[in-house]
Amino acid sequence: MSKFWSSMVKRTEPYVPGEQVNQQKIVKLNTNENPYPPSPKVMEAIRGEMERNLQLYPSPTADDLRETIGRQYGLTADEVFVGNGSDEVLAFSFMAFFEPGQPIRFPDVTYSFYPVYAKLFDIPYEEVPLNRDFTLQIDKFFQSKGGVILPNPNAPTSLYAELDTIEEIVKNNPDRVVIIDEAYIDFAAKSVAELIQQYDNLLVVQTTSKSRSLAGLRVGFAMGNHSLIDALIRIKDSFNSYTLDRLALVGAKAAFEDEAYFKEITAKIIATRNETTVALKQLGFAVLPSQANFIFASHSSVSAERLYNELKKEGVLVRYFNKPGIDNYLRMTIGTDEQMERLLEKLTEIL
Amino acid sequence: MSKFWSSMVKRTEPYVPGEQVNQQKIVKLNTNENPYPPSPKVMEAIRGEMERNLQLYPSPTADDLRETIGRQYGLTADEVFVGNGSDEVLAFSFMAFFEPGQPIRFPDVTYSFYPVYAKLFDIPYEEVPLNRDFTLQIDKFFQSKGGVILPNPNAPTSLYAELDTIEEIVKNNPDRVVIIDEAYIDFAAKSVAELIQQYDNLLVVQTTSKSRSLAGLRVGFAMGNHSLIDALIRIKDSFNSYTLDRLALVGAKAAFEDEAYFKEITAKIIATRNETTVALKQLGFAVLPSQANFIFASHSSVSAERLYNELKKEGVLVRYFNKPGIDNYLRMTIGTDEQMERLLEKLTEIL
Repeated sequence: MSKFWSSMVKRTEPYVPGEQVNQQKIVKLNTNENPYPPSPKVMEAIRGEMERNLQLYPSPTADDLRETIGRQYGLTADEVFVGNGSDEVLAFSFMAFFEPGQPIRFPDVTYSFYPVYAKLFDIPYEEVPLNRDFTLQIDKFFQSKGGVILPNPNAPTSLYAELDTIEEIVKNNPDRVVIIDEAYIDFAAKSVAELIQQYDNLLVVQTTSKSRSLAGLRVGFAMGNHSLIDALIRIKDSFNSYTLDRLALVGAKAAFEDEAYFKEITAKIIATRNETTVALKQLGFAVLPSQANFIFASHSSVSAERLYNELKKEGVLVRYFNKPGIDNYLRMTIGTDEQMERLLEKLTEIL
Repeated sequence: MSKFWSSMVKRTEPYVPGEQVNQQKIVKLNTNENPYPPSPKVMEAIRGEMERNLQLYPSPTADDLRETIGRQYGLTADEVFVGNGSDEVLAFSFMAFFEPGQPIRFPDVTYSFYPVYAKLFDIPYEEVPLNRDFTLQIDKFFQSKGGVILPNPNAPTSLYAELDTIEEIVKNNPDRVVIIDEAYIDFAAKSVAELIQQYDNLLVVQTTSKSRSLAGLRVGFAMGNHSLIDALIRIKDSFNSYTLDRLALVGAKAAFEDEAYFKEITAKIIATRNETTVALKQLGFAVLPSQANFIFASHSSVSAERLYNELKKEGVLVRYFNKPGIDNYLRMTIGTDEQMERLLEKLTEIL
């Protein structure tokens, strides 16, 4: 603490991301990254762009990328916003749609960055308890005073709520923005983006960090009614004219253009997830039915904390949250088949 | 405007960056970019990093880059903060050190993003008039209630204030943070960074967008007492864990490591600036004594607005600010010798 700190700094409770380790030998299953590299077309695009005009500012409006993303969802560029990872897009969304004094709602077990944003921007919040099986208590999200933010699939639970469930929540908050954070949607069923034309209060946030293998490039996006997108652009243009560099702009565009590669690696991850689920159950784990690129599981006899520590000693990094309600669960990212075999081997040895 | 907009969105008055044009034939002298490409070592570093782990998150702490920058100024990594362009670093600084209700001060002719940040974060401000020759009225910055922000060299005037002038301002605001925005410092004399050990209220902000030819990569940084840097880190970690992607991190590092290239192109730009100043004076311009990579000049008989428009028709883009006090000036970025010849040719034709 210092006399120079603003009241904003003083009230922060910063987010702590999963460890980033640089040792090649570690099996890194702790931050839900994609185990496969990005499409070769991404590298090709970056290689080309790098030789041209890196000394010039990027496009402040990023129209090219916004159009490309929009096309995937039948939206126009002015219904799409892009930013420096979905974390920045979420931060801008808290600034644009939530208000000090008007409590927002999110689940009590969810992405732990939401309360961090809320504290930063002085927005009060109500944590809505999940059911005992980690599903949503839908009606508890109705008629929120300040708005709603909700990941689907939820993290770290991995559970997906069907579109009609999400639609109920959107419909029952007609005067408040409902943000659906779809970081993991490509590993699940349908995106709620198809409801954007029907609901002007629906903002859908996605990322290229998971299914598009671009965590290292920092590109996230939001889709919604153009007046919501306008608000995000106003915030961005009052904050930083160019949040995406030239290489990120062309790299992300190329990733969206290589649909075949995307489908192939996504299918692989889903297959590995389903096999890993079966194997974990055989080892005595209760495994939630995941629709994400990670698994949330609890063992019947050995504590999650012990498993986390033992795995770490053995060079396998998973995520453990020391938080009531989920402190006996491990969140394990789906890696390659080889990585999951290592995980299962080590778990077998420990148990 | 929409019923979903927060009061924050409603009070924004977004910054409008200089036009980004894609036509190759345009002589682009409007956004103070470097006319020379980045060091070949930057491309080499990006090429290597691109093939490794683009699917993994970048380092959230960016220690490597912070150490490299620190070494340039005899500072440790914990006295350096890095962000997505100096615009993001400035935005975080407004959040970290300035406070609603406590008016900050900046010159009335300066970087036009400052009032934009102030409006976004609801921070009142006083615009301190420059002297008639565009120099600073130093004592008017003393004992500010909320803090001070000041570019040196100033933009768009191009004027540099000597270190003892800046030191007076820092010394006379002992309880408030004084931010010196040194975007153009490498084209001038000395950085105020050497005073950081003496003054715990001094924050120095710089960028790689100008002298390091990396506008397209978005890397800015701040240097100051570690408790100021801590505050910026707390804000960043409450906003976006990873603001610099893997390619920007290694690219910027490589740029700092190639000191010879940096010195060469900086010297070239300074030489071109001095020649252009002489030539413009011969054409009847009053030219401020620039210590930046741009020139601020006013013609004795033809209005700046007309010159701006005529030049644009001829494919030469410079910057014109329709603002009282400077509305008869043009801001012209220093390009290559060839580009400046084109500018001078066209000006000669028009005049």
